[in-house]
Amino acid sequence: MQQVVSQESERTTTSDISSEALARVRESFNRQGLMATLGAELTEVSPGLVRIRMPYSRSVTQQHGYFHAGATSSIADSAGGYAGFTLFPEGSSVLTVEFKINLVAPAQGEYLEATGKVMRSGRTLTICQLEVHALNGEERTLVALGQQTLICIHGKPDLQV
Amino acid sequence: MQQVVSQESERTTTSDISSEALARVRESFNRQGLMATLGAELTEVSPGLVRIRMPYSRSVTQQHGYFHAGATSSIADSAGGYAGFTLFPEGSSVLTVEFKINLVAPAQGEYLEATGKVMRSGRTLTICQLEVHALNGEERTLVALGQQTLICIHGKPDLQV
Amino acid sequence: MQQVVSQESERTTTSDISSEALARVRESFNRQGLMATLGAELTEVSPGLVRIRMPYSRSVTQQHGYFHAGATSSIADSAGGYAGFTLFPEGSSVLTVEFKINLVAPAQGEYLEATGKVMRSGRTLTICQLEVHALNGEERTLVALGQQTLICIHGKPDLQV
Amino acid sequence: MQQVVSQESERTTTSDISSEALARVRESFNRQGLMATLGAELTEVSPGLVRIRMPYSRSVTQQHGYFHAGATSSIADSAGGYAGFTLFPEGSSVLTVEFKINLVAPAQGEYLEATGKVMRSGRTLTICQLEVHALNGEERTLVALGQQTLICIHGKPDLQV
Repeated sequence: MQQVVSQESERTTTSDISSEALARVRESFNRQGLMATLGAELTEVSPGLVRIRMPYSRSVTQQHGYFHAGATSSIADSAGGYAGFTLFPEGSSVLTVEFKINLVAPAQGEYLEATGKVMRSGRTLTICQLEVHALNGEERTLVALGQQTLICIHGKPDLQV
Repeated sequence: MQQVVSQESERTTTSDISSEALARVRESFNRQGLMATLGAELTEVSPGLVRIRMPYSRSVTQQHGYFHAGATSSIADSAGGYAGFTLFPEGSSVLTVEFKINLVAPAQGEYLEATGKVMRSGRTLTICQLEVHALNGEERTLVALGQQTLICIHGKPDLQV
Repeated sequence: MQQVVSQESERTTTSDISSEALARVRESFNRQGLMATLGAELTEVSPGLVRIRMPYSRSVTQQHGYFHAGATSSIADSAGGYAGFTLFPEGSSVLTVEFKINLVAPAQGEYLEATGKVMRSGRTLTICQLEVHALNGEERTLVALGQQTLICIHGKPDLQV
Repeated sequence: MQQVVSQESERTTTSDISSEALARVRESFNRQGLMATLGAELTEVSPGLVRIRMPYSRSVTQQHGYFHAGATSSIADSAGGYAGFTLFPEGSSVLTVEFKINLVAPAQGEYLEATGKVMRSGRTLTICQLEVHALNGEERTLVALGQQTLICIHGKPDLQV
């Protein structure tokens, strides 16, 4: 595991986050089969904020060749979930209660980058804002905007749920 | 195209739908790279109602081995989108404006089946209800519930958008 | 209190609900200042289903003279909240975590009637579907459609929160 | 009308907004019967951003004496709607397609202030973020967070819809 962590950390921005929380997020992210299928990677892990990037390929498209709203939502959901998880206590796990997402522009570009940001963190429920940008060279276009409710399952380490 | 249609129609329930609309939905669905990636298939196409099924595999999981909320949402979004599309006029195309989804139970089973159902169809906007069930043998469990807003792009055939 | 209960019960449909749960819902509803302000009344209280009716008046309008989306949402939110509350244990209380509502047609008519219906009831979270119809004589038109997440606060009777 | 405008403008912050758009927003707001019923007032009108304030009173409460989620949502919906309307062309009107709101903390205080902010403005659809804060003296607490979709009805002046 540690090898994976150090290997990836070359590409991942982290700040002010405990090594325990960072390892917990990475390890959980790496167990999400869907993220590998989508080619998604963690690009930032900070307390209450996580970014995930997904490259364009034919395998994530909708009917017009743009990124599918489902692929966009998938990385947005994981970004929000792990943003919440950075603030959860050790030995807990995270589940998505619900989310809502607006697709505000055609999702086309070399990459999509989803940002999940905790807006309110309670003992049981956590609320995140979700943003997804399309990246084209230096250009960065907002393509989706969402809001998410997470639940913290206390006393159930993520690995054992 | 016709070959694909007839091949798949062995497995797909259809009722009261024009062959034009059916072909249009299938053909558009087949262009969604993400649906192939998820192993998703159309299982019902009727006016205002579409069902999509996705088999379980490691490639669509979240961290605990259940179906990822993003995979669940992806087939729900496509089911709703194509439910709306069955009612759209020829020569138009469909885009998702937004959707909201509650994950109401752990999504575990041999398959997930998403049902998109048109609740109100206007000239510009269409509203769908989304349901996702987990299928285990004969058992059918509700795992997600959603609501979706679609927009009809008039005068832009789906292929040319 | 009892007087109010018996007085109102002439106008309210109830079925298969314990007198404890019915009294609890009515009593809580009657403490909602906003419902009185909107002229709203309970018209049905059954296990997992509550209906609330609001008459048209200038005091609940938006800029075109229709019912304001906020008034529509207010009775939808209370209908869902009390639908959940009918299934909660004694000595608990209910709060809305979030809701989403689509305004699917102009809300015009003599009355609006909101229906809240429990779709999934868990120990902590409950999910409801919300519908609002406009009533004009015998006519009944769907004007809004929503989805709501409630939380059950155990061990805090509604009166003492 | 003009008198009302000048009278209120003592209390309302405005910046960089044309007098046409400002008058249009005020005049439309003043026709919303529900806003008067709730005691709500416009406190800021800028391009793409509107704030509305509502004082606490028994007439806007839920069962525990806090502001009702419906009252909170009502001013959030109007704030978002008018934020969008500031950017719409003359001779158009605005309708809410849908909104989603999370109630993130008990809504208690002397006032609630809703902020609607345009995140993306298209020809047909506009997306807003909604925030509601409770105000207690100098204290300002986030109590609700939402997201809203508006539709611009071209060629139908707000007064004639």
